[in-house]
Amino acid sequence: MTIQYEFKVRWGDTDAAGIVFYPNFYKWMDEATHEFLNIKEITTDALFETMKINVPLLEAKCQFKSPLVFEDLVTINSEISEIHNKVFKISHQFYKENVCIAEGYEVRAWTSFKEKPKAVEIPESIRKKLVSEETKQLLHK
Amino acid sequence: MTIQYEFKVRWGDTDAAGIVFYPNFYKWMDEATHEFLNIKEITTDALFETMKINVPLLEAKCQFKSPLVFEDLVTINSEISEIHNKVFKISHQFYKENVCIAEGYEVRAWTSFKEKPKAVEIPESIRKKLVSEETKQLLHK
Amino acid sequence: MTIQYEFKVRWGDTDAAGIVFYPNFYKWMDEATHEFLNIKEITTDALFETMKINVPLLEAKCQFKSPLVFEDLVTINSEISEIHNKVFKISHQFYKENVCIAEGYEVRAWTSFKEKPKAVEIPESIRKKLVSEETKQLLHK
Amino acid sequence: MTIQYEFKVRWGDTDAAGIVFYPNFYKWMDEATHEFLNIKEITTDALFETMKINVPLLEAKCQFKSPLVFEDLVTINSEISEIHNKVFKISHQFYKENVCIAEGYEVRAWTSFKEKPKAVEIPESIRKKLVSEETKQLLHK
Repeated sequence: MTIQYEFKVRWGDTDAAGIVFYPNFYKWMDEATHEFLNIKEITTDALFETMKINVPLLEAKCQFKSPLVFEDLVTINSEISEIHNKVFKISHQFYKENVCIAEGYEVRAWTSFKEKPKAVEIPESIRKKLVSEETKQLLHK
Repeated sequence: MTIQYEFKVRWGDTDAAGIVFYPNFYKWMDEATHEFLNIKEITTDALFETMKINVPLLEAKCQFKSPLVFEDLVTINSEISEIHNKVFKISHQFYKENVCIAEGYEVRAWTSFKEKPKAVEIPESIRKKLVSEETKQLLHK
Repeated sequence: MTIQYEFKVRWGDTDAAGIVFYPNFYKWMDEATHEFLNIKEITTDALFETMKINVPLLEAKCQFKSPLVFEDLVTINSEISEIHNKVFKISHQFYKENVCIAEGYEVRAWTSFKEKPKAVEIPESIRKKLVSEETKQLLHK
Repeated sequence: MTIQYEFKVRWGDTDAAGIVFYPNFYKWMDEATHEFLNIKEITTDALFETMKINVPLLEAKCQFKSPLVFEDLVTINSEISEIHNKVFKISHQFYKENVCIAEGYEVRAWTSFKEKPKAVEIPESIRKKLVSEETKQLLHK
């Protein structure tokens, strides 16, 4: 199931060439993933506070097709494209006025920070939510 | 030829899990690329100011092997791994105490920002510098 | 006239102490100012593109009363608190659940970037919009 | 005692007006403070890891006299300008080629993060180091 995250390019996201400084695309993929998990009712803040679980990156890639500029309105479409024992892959497509301007993915590990960070098995309840087609679509703020 | 860029993890680079927020690795790859070009005497600030040439990204990927924490001292080894007509690939390996903790690459296009950003041919003089084994190794600040 | 800007604290805004890294408050004041100007129909992107006018900072201050954490929902109330010949002051109050958790201001100069950045007189049409009580309140995204 | 911190303006620090995006000045003041504390042998990473002590902000202000651009080399001179029971003020002056281009300060509280963040008394041993004129000047990387 694809979930959408919308954002606006801010002045501080730009660089002296007048376009977005590229590491910001990864910041937005990270934001989209957290919103994706929230909508799936996998609340990353509660998970971290109560169980010291977070989902750090093993790998992230992005391909840039067209630059973004100040005040562009962008929508990211995100979906789980792979799910393994301790690891999942979430794919992100960036759209500006219905044109795909970038696409990327993140490979993330279900990780306990109780002691030294360590990947652990994704619980069955979480796995179900991640791949579920039925999602209580929360109104995005 | 491999060129080194050193940096220290700053407090603002960390996140609430106590490790580096991952988009910062791309910020550091970008910094390493600019230092690489500087050492090759391809001065990106002058190129942009005089000719509106910059080297935006087509693609960037990073694999994360081990997290970084506040005040870690890190060295990036960077080298040109591919060079094409308008495009080059620069590979980056992150080392902490001689252990590779992340590796990635950037594919960048030689781009004119005179009007709408447009990839243009890499000049022969630049191409020579990029692949040259002989480099006046500048003292890194 | 007070104008509101809402945002959510993102994972990347936090630091290893589990709270927001403080320079982000200035990023949000900057975002609030741009939204303030947009709502006043002073479109900073068009001004910069057509006239190379921007509103860089002379001074900014913020007082922090209570820390913000991941996923906090925050509202900034912004208003022009002083207006001079070339310079204006915009005051920002940060609210979380109706409690003021930070307050600050920015002093900005109406500046031409045509050549070397130089403060210029705020045009009368802009001045009227800045202080106007009547504003077509745009729906905030 | 004044301690110096040097940095270089990076591409990602700039914005579409071609100058530094202003919140970065606060990022640099934060970096300068951490280096100041390190040189005073007040190691913020160890303090946080072992005692959950950190020095969050109560207030920060900066005045901007002249813009910075890509690859500018900047030195910050930092010194303790006030010290109270739980709180200290550290003042920062930014120099580019011996010209002061910005100056600011941070008011920070000696804070325990063991439970809810709470300002606590600055230990006498720390107080002595903060105000000491004799400092083992570490070589800055």
